[in-house]
Amino acid sequence: MTGAKWIWYPGDYELYHNQLVHNRREEYDWFIPAMWHIVRPESACRFTKKITLEAETSAQIYAKGRGYVSIDGKKCSAVNKAVQLPAGTFTLTVDISCPEAFPAVFIDTPGAETDETWAAHFDGAGRKHAAWDPAFTKAEDDPAVFPFSYKELKPVSYEPAGDGILYDFGRESFGPVHIQRTKQMGDIHIYYGESREEALDTEYTLVREHIPAGDDTADCPARAFRYIYLKADHGTPALSAEEEYLPIEDIGSFRTEDDQLQAIWDICTRAFHLNSREFYFDGIKRDRWVWSGDAYQSYKIGRYLFRDREITKRTIRALLGKPPYFQHINTINDYSMYLIIAVKEYYEASGDREFVISVKDELYALYDFIVSRLDEKTGYMVEREGDWIFVDWAEMDKEGPVCAEQILLYQVYKAMEVITEITNDAQEDFGDLILHSYASSVKEPAPDKAVPQDAAERAEKLKQRILRDFWCEEKHAFIDTYASGKNNVTRHANIFAIMFDIVDDEKKKQIAEDVLLKDDVPQITTPYFKLYELMALGETGYIAAVQEYIGSYWGGMVENGATSAWEEYDPRRQGTEHYEMYGDRYGCSLCHAWGSGPVYLLERYCAGVYGTSVGEKTFDVRPDPGRYTSFQAVVPVGEGQAEVTYKDGKITVKTTVPGGTLYWKGQTVTLEAEKEYTL
Amino acid sequence: MTGAKWIWYPGDYELYHNQLVHNRREEYDWFIPAMWHIVRPESACRFTKKITLEAETSAQIYAKGRGYVSIDGKKCSAVNKAVQLPAGTFTLTVDISCPEAFPAVFIDTPGAETDETWAAHFDGAGRKHAAWDPAFTKAEDDPAVFPFSYKELKPVSYEPAGDGILYDFGRESFGPVHIQRTKQMGDIHIYYGESREEALDTEYTLVREHIPAGDDTADCPARAFRYIYLKADHGTPALSAEEEYLPIEDIGSFRTEDDQLQAIWDICTRAFHLNSREFYFDGIKRDRWVWSGDAYQSYKIGRYLFRDREITKRTIRALLGKPPYFQHINTINDYSMYLIIAVKEYYEASGDREFVISVKDELYALYDFIVSRLDEKTGYMVEREGDWIFVDWAEMDKEGPVCAEQILLYQVYKAMEVITEITNDAQEDFGDLILHSYASSVKEPAPDKAVPQDAAERAEKLKQRILRDFWCEEKHAFIDTYASGKNNVTRHANIFAIMFDIVDDEKKKQIAEDVLLKDDVPQITTPYFKLYELMALGETGYIAAVQEYIGSYWGGMVENGATSAWEEYDPRRQGTEHYEMYGDRYGCSLCHAWGSGPVYLLERYCAGVYGTSVGEKTFDVRPDPGRYTSFQAVVPVGEGQAEVTYKDGKITVKTTVPGGTLYWKGQTVTLEAEKEYTL
Repeated sequence: MTGAKWIWYPGDYELYHNQLVHNRREEYDWFIPAMWHIVRPESACRFTKKITLEAETSAQIYAKGRGYVSIDGKKCSAVNKAVQLPAGTFTLTVDISCPEAFPAVFIDTPGAETDETWAAHFDGAGRKHAAWDPAFTKAEDDPAVFPFSYKELKPVSYEPAGDGILYDFGRESFGPVHIQRTKQMGDIHIYYGESREEALDTEYTLVREHIPAGDDTADCPARAFRYIYLKADHGTPALSAEEEYLPIEDIGSFRTEDDQLQAIWDICTRAFHLNSREFYFDGIKRDRWVWSGDAYQSYKIGRYLFRDREITKRTIRALLGKPPYFQHINTINDYSMYLIIAVKEYYEASGDREFVISVKDELYALYDFIVSRLDEKTGYMVEREGDWIFVDWAEMDKEGPVCAEQILLYQVYKAMEVITEITNDAQEDFGDLILHSYASSVKEPAPDKAVPQDAAERAEKLKQRILRDFWCEEKHAFIDTYASGKNNVTRHANIFAIMFDIVDDEKKKQIAEDVLLKDDVPQITTPYFKLYELMALGETGYIAAVQEYIGSYWGGMVENGATSAWEEYDPRRQGTEHYEMYGDRYGCSLCHAWGSGPVYLLERYCAGVYGTSVGEKTFDVRPDPGRYTSFQAVVPVGEGQAEVTYKDGKITVKTTVPGGTLYWKGQTVTLEAEKEYTL
Repeated sequence: MTGAKWIWYPGDYELYHNQLVHNRREEYDWFIPAMWHIVRPESACRFTKKITLEAETSAQIYAKGRGYVSIDGKKCSAVNKAVQLPAGTFTLTVDISCPEAFPAVFIDTPGAETDETWAAHFDGAGRKHAAWDPAFTKAEDDPAVFPFSYKELKPVSYEPAGDGILYDFGRESFGPVHIQRTKQMGDIHIYYGESREEALDTEYTLVREHIPAGDDTADCPARAFRYIYLKADHGTPALSAEEEYLPIEDIGSFRTEDDQLQAIWDICTRAFHLNSREFYFDGIKRDRWVWSGDAYQSYKIGRYLFRDREITKRTIRALLGKPPYFQHINTINDYSMYLIIAVKEYYEASGDREFVISVKDELYALYDFIVSRLDEKTGYMVEREGDWIFVDWAEMDKEGPVCAEQILLYQVYKAMEVITEITNDAQEDFGDLILHSYASSVKEPAPDKAVPQDAAERAEKLKQRILRDFWCEEKHAFIDTYASGKNNVTRHANIFAIMFDIVDDEKKKQIAEDVLLKDDVPQITTPYFKLYELMALGETGYIAAVQEYIGSYWGGMVENGATSAWEEYDPRRQGTEHYEMYGDRYGCSLCHAWGSGPVYLLERYCAGVYGTSVGEKTFDVRPDPGRYTSFQAVVPVGEGQAEVTYKDGKITVKTTVPGGTLYWKGQTVTLEAEKEYTL
């Protein structure tokens, strides 16, 4: 082991796989490209490092793409062959072009190993520390192939159905299907069903494959399914399937004697793992896209389930893409803002300054894009050409500036305060290699426009303005918007006001009571925003209300046979009505990341573990069993974990790391690592 | 014929082929990626048009890539199959993703034909009229394959040499080589020579191929050669070769009884055609890259040889790439400026407003980039981080602002005057399709920065400052720079002063006499800048000096056996010394576009034909035979051509288009089309 890694220009790995991911959505026999601008990786890159060798050495230069090697600026060899490196100190440079994927280099010769100390750039701009991924540390690894694991999937049953055979794999899964057939069998049709009905209702099955007569074997790309309905012109082909997955181990767990609650935890973690792939997906059947709003919830859930920082970083990079920004992330204003907020929250949870610095150019440019489109007079986020002020699929007064958007903007300013403090004067250090910084040649923001340095001031000004324009003291609520004069109240802005700290604790309580717990305020209809609402209720201490909703809503899915959390569940619906959405008979995704919210809710509010300083070096444990009589939770925190057990009215806490403080029924205990406390 | 065309997002075709071109440079067995940032085409695109059909119709939707079809926003079919289109008016949309190349669509069903009236965009930004190319108008055409023509190349001789055979194809060419062999022949080595010596000197041959033992046949990619040296382990494989070329017909011609001059014309046009490919290349052996400085000369030469506007537009688009600009075009400050100037000159020659409008976003962004990096106090172009102030390979005082760069900047302002006048309020019209303009969401320039609208004022101010700071009245010359206090004079700034009209005709004459025609001012050493110098001499009426240089310099190449114009020629060198350059024994390109300058010089100054208004609706014919006793020239002008014959002291002129004025020995004649005038 030399510590050598495949290296590339920062972002290229994520942009390449992001491009592939967004070229795979299928419905019927259509391919549906992402509806937003997909940024591509660089096609060429120069990799450089100043190296000192004690003795002349032969080094194999592995590369993806074509190119050449230079020593002290003098061309000397092609790549993918051995190069004689001299003794002494010299600059080793590898120039690579790889339009098919992205340029990458690997050298494991001692003293010349490729790693993050190398500079990666294209000439005249963009020199940065090279990027790498833990999955690619051997010469035979290929960063253009995403490092999934595979295991055999066996059907739990199969049965004849019509002209074909229906396989049931017992639970929602994702992976490739393989077919073996004889010449006589002719054409084959495969129908993928998240439900039995979907697989069999071949006119409306959303995902399907037609394999014309031909080769003896056929491999279908990885897709979502629980059921497979297989039909051949003649006879019965052999079918096998694999699960394609990332082997991420859970840290978090939640055990309970309540079978329904345990089943809820299981379908939520199942759905979340299935959607944790190259990036955080929305759903594995559809869209299989990366949406910043959905991902924002996944960062939170993932932090409490398995704390895999790589997938968070990959997702943020994929969503950030590259400047220039001429549309919002996923075309949605809110989604640009979640992304910036997510970087701050990731930093607070991980303490990972290097990552923030590595994406600072993108963050500044995105922030600049946001600020450049604010209303000139009020400073509010308003709808500009090409914008989508989404918030939620809900009836809402969107005339003029929308309150929920302004609260996100407030939180963006708060995030930029943190980000600029980290990135101010942060310069990547390449020793005496000549530096060309990408940022240095990006135009400075104009004096009257966004300067991240004034984010704190902007935050405070905006907060005052929001409170003045949108707060209705009479209703104890934020109104949707003031422009229409209707003073309409929906839950959304009020949820954000709690989540994003625009009001003090007393006002949060008022809002929870007078808006969130009031039936006459229109209910949230999407599980997406419902999670925010439940967070707001958890935040304000209404854990019983959260638990009740988990039981009725997710419990309802379980009762309806869910093996993974759904995109949407409406208790008023019956049978296959549950599968309808977006005008498609089987349009509803039965494996959706945002359905996994209970993982977050139970760990964060019931076990009550959360960081209180950067990197979660300090953290609180404030268990709140609510209606539950017992549970045993393990919660990732900082670089360790906390075990929180509630049984017989007593709480037991043990942590693997110091820094914790336990709050329980008026008592406060400083937690030492590896020591068990029972109160 | 329905007039249907393959359509794509504007620029994608050029960016795709530009990326391939810059991934092909070979030296020894190395591949050398371009040293600048290569911009990639979009991976996905939406194509939309409002269509009216009288009757229901089945339409085949051809596409490069995967995607789907929608009617009035409702998804209805995959692509690459027949779709039932309804009678009546509806919006037809085709969404395509093609990461392998670039998205393109073709429909030739009457009433639904794809053409430039379609909108092409990625959602939320960038909607533009679709682009197309005359070469792709049939369903079976593939825009990802550049439409070259091929013809068989036969060797004029071959002979045994060492262990192999040397083929001589008689003159410089470019194309693929094909090999047929038997199993026994083993490995094959091919050495490409622009000269006989290069092909045979296998240690130093720049371009070569090693075909390991294997298949019976092998096809080598298109490369430059006159000689091929072929060696097999055993026996003699069969070799055939083709020329790969664009079938562009010449309009311009220059016939003379002077054999040497005729040979010069021939090697110049040969070199120019060989370098006119996807884009205007610098040289076909090396770099095979697109350089804005080289291209600037090619636009001028091409206008006088074949007036192929497609290659000019392709080259400009390839060089422009896409914003954001964080380095100069080809990393060179001058090269960004030539590019903007070239757009103006292309417009003046062609009257093609549509093209200028179609690249306005890129032009504004590039201009903005240039202006954002000027010296804050003086407004001069200065060297910023990552810049390359090139001007020419020549000893020159480059301390502080360099005069030659400021004169180019002056001409950039003049160009932006013209460009903004065309593009002001220019909006692409899509009828009642909803518009999202790329430009609308690009940030407006900040008030204290570049506003193209003030280009005229900037030009005038800069001109006065240049004259004040750089003009030396005593020497009748512009100095390189004032910062060093050396008052050094080289030819470069003085040549630009004449070319780019920063001084009046009287001062131009002074400069020509006191700088250009003076031997004690260091000579220009590159054919690149020599062409500018000869233009300046032509411009000021010193045609005899131009002709003398053509005879000695290009005549020298002819005497040394050139079959196409060289990258460099130094009369003081002997034998194979002519082939050396850049430290490589065969580094000098023997087929270089910038070597083709005489085509421009003879047509422009000797035949004396040039436009005097936009689109060359009016033009002057001011023949100046100089030292020549006879010639017969055909010169493209406007949409037609002018024939100018000089014989026995008399001039005969005939034009195919009106608008011309003949000036000859004090006489002025208004030329009617198709009428011959002899004076």
